Amino acid sequence: MNSKLKQNSVGIVKPETIEINETLRLDCGKLLDSFELIYETYGSLNSEKSNAILICHALSGDHHAAGYHHKDDKKPGWWDSCIGPGKPFDTNKFFVVSLNNLGGCRGSSGPNSTDKKTGKEFGPDFPIVTVNDWVNSQKLLGDYLGINCWACVVGGSLGGMQALQWAISYPEKIKNSIIVAAAAKLSAQNIAFNEVARQAIITDPDFHDGRYNDHGVIPKRGLSIARMLGHITYLSDDSMRQKFGRDLREGKLHFGYDVDFQVESYLRYQAQAFVERFDANTYLLMTKALDYFDPAADFNGDLSLAFEKTDSRFLVVSFTSDWRFSSSKSHEIVKSLVRARKNVSYAEIEANQGHDAFLMPIPDYLKVLSNFMENVG
Amino acid sequence: MNSKLKQNSVGIVKPETIEINETLRLDCGKLLDSFELIYETYGSLNSEKSNAILICHALSGDHHAAGYHHKDDKKPGWWDSCIGPGKPFDTNKFFVVSLNNLGGCRGSSGPNSTDKKTGKEFGPDFPIVTVNDWVNSQKLLGDYLGINCWACVVGGSLGGMQALQWAISYPEKIKNSIIVAAAAKLSAQNIAFNEVARQAIITDPDFHDGRYNDHGVIPKRGLSIARMLGHITYLSDDSMRQKFGRDLREGKLHFGYDVDFQVESYLRYQAQAFVERFDANTYLLMTKALDYFDPAADFNGDLSLAFEKTDSRFLVVSFTSDWRFSSSKSHEIVKSLVRARKNVSYAEIEANQGHDAFLMPIPDYLKVLSNFMENVG
Repeated sequence: MNSKLKQNSVGIVKPETIEINETLRLDCGKLLDSFELIYETYGSLNSEKSNAILICHALSGDHHAAGYHHKDDKKPGWWDSCIGPGKPFDTNKFFVVSLNNLGGCRGSSGPNSTDKKTGKEFGPDFPIVTVNDWVNSQKLLGDYLGINCWACVVGGSLGGMQALQWAISYPEKIKNSIIVAAAAKLSAQNIAFNEVARQAIITDPDFHDGRYNDHGVIPKRGLSIARMLGHITYLSDDSMRQKFGRDLREGKLHFGYDVDFQVESYLRYQAQAFVERFDANTYLLMTKALDYFDPAADFNGDLSLAFEKTDSRFLVVSFTSDWRFSSSKSHEIVKSLVRARKNVSYAEIEANQGHDAFLMPIPDYLKVLSNFMENVG
Repeated sequence: MNSKLKQNSVGIVKPETIEINETLRLDCGKLLDSFELIYETYGSLNSEKSNAILICHALSGDHHAAGYHHKDDKKPGWWDSCIGPGKPFDTNKFFVVSLNNLGGCRGSSGPNSTDKKTGKEFGPDFPIVTVNDWVNSQKLLGDYLGINCWACVVGGSLGGMQALQWAISYPEKIKNSIIVAAAAKLSAQNIAFNEVARQAIITDPDFHDGRYNDHGVIPKRGLSIARMLGHITYLSDDSMRQKFGRDLREGKLHFGYDVDFQVESYLRYQAQAFVERFDANTYLLMTKALDYFDPAADFNGDLSLAFEKTDSRFLVVSFTSDWRFSSSKSHEIVKSLVRARKNVSYAEIEANQGHDAFLMPIPDYLKVLSNFMENVG
């Protein structure tokens, strides 16, 4: 953390954990009698408690969205480009809350937590949670923090799905919703990619039906394949061309199965780093939350009916080179909001970084977020 | 095989195998002193030996391109829609040759063959062969069959790369070249997908460094993941939507990791069938042949220079929904041919089947092939 970063950084932050002792009825039919959520906050809640922003994370994200945990940290939180003094989610003005979702592996109750009923780790018995379940758990976090109504709920990718679900589930508790690089439902191709990732993990002999921790191993081969595959879908063909092209790592072909091309080396490195920080059961569960998300299903397939009760303002953002959740997916959301006569702004950002663009400090993107946030609260 | 099919079918065919005892110097630097090629022929070679067409197969293809091996076969060869009496590659007029490439697993010398020097199976020691090596081995097959000049060399996908390489390697031995759904080189994204497939196979504990046959197992988990992944890239997002949408296999979500969606069931079934018929070492080797293909590399990156010596006529075909080898890849080939002042026709076929379209009997596609073939020979 250098001094330059400090100037518009939220600085050193410390996560907090709460235990919520209210029963949460999950979409799968199971009940969670109590659960823990880990979260961070940036900025101050005003006396009217009307300036709170909820940040929802994507598949492999967590509660650490901005600032640094230690002064020696090399990287800030995952959305530091958007959260801080003078940034789109301006901590001089807003109280920003970011949590690790239920089922996660970074501190909230999930597969690695202890099941109080059995005294043992949940592992694969942790229930599959949905976007709707997350929103319900986030509502309880809001209650705990005294936030009756969010000034804004925002997220990218799977996080954008939560921002969308908030407007549907709790129309009276959300004033603005920002849905970035998301979709109202996954396509068959999206589901197919998730299924390959799951099969890679589940068929890894070290998976042990999800009880790998009991065996002192982790299904690193499968999780690694899943991450490599995911990574390809986060980048655009174009950005991979610019980043790697057909560059050879050692200037020549090896006629073997070690690394020839830079892109192979990059993927292996990314996968290795991921395996060390992420849990396989959580990965499986997150992909199912993605697959299952389809709020229109409860409304005869008509998403506009799902929005009927909300008075939220909406901002929908997509990126030109995103092929995981292409702009056409955002158009579906926008069209449904227009049909429901809701207040919606839409921006398609010219960007070649693919799906990952939502995490990047792209000037036009930050400007669109800032402009929208100027009229919030 | 019903009577309707018989009418324009080449009927019952029988593969032949030849042993070629000429030394083949491979691009990797190794020498093959002798090797076997399995092939089929359809139609008759004319007395001038001027009516021969060579069919080159794609990643998982083989020599059985048309007709039936047994009268009870349910399916004909993989390109039966294009090869037969009255079809684009009209066996009333042409002598069609289709082989299994070197390194394959359907009868030609490959990882499953015995290395005469050691008396043992090659396994992972079978050298990595390139598109250029294949073309050289196909030239020797032509010599054996007495074909000094091919009326046409044709292929789709990896097969199209061979048709392209033929015009470059043996300009005096090819009169026409048909390059379908191919690319002059793979993109970083293409290579990345291949690398994930390879890693899935290689990290499968049953792979045993490629010596799985010695252990009486096959790396079915890895090969299965590779095939599922490949399959996604062969289909278009649109065709998957039409074929599966978000249809549930049993009409409800299971909140577990068994099959929920039809597309998951389809992928698992396809993978299982593939594992039973294909060899993992061959799969690895084929993906490397794809990655390594880059004929322009020998010409300072300028593909048009590679075409300088050829007098072949070219037909290049792409499909609108193919995202594995999109139309833009075909445009690169066409532009280079135009720059080299060669005789090239190009057709982009409206089709929603993705990369797999090249195997389908799409009327416009068959018509384009037929029209081009009318002026051949």
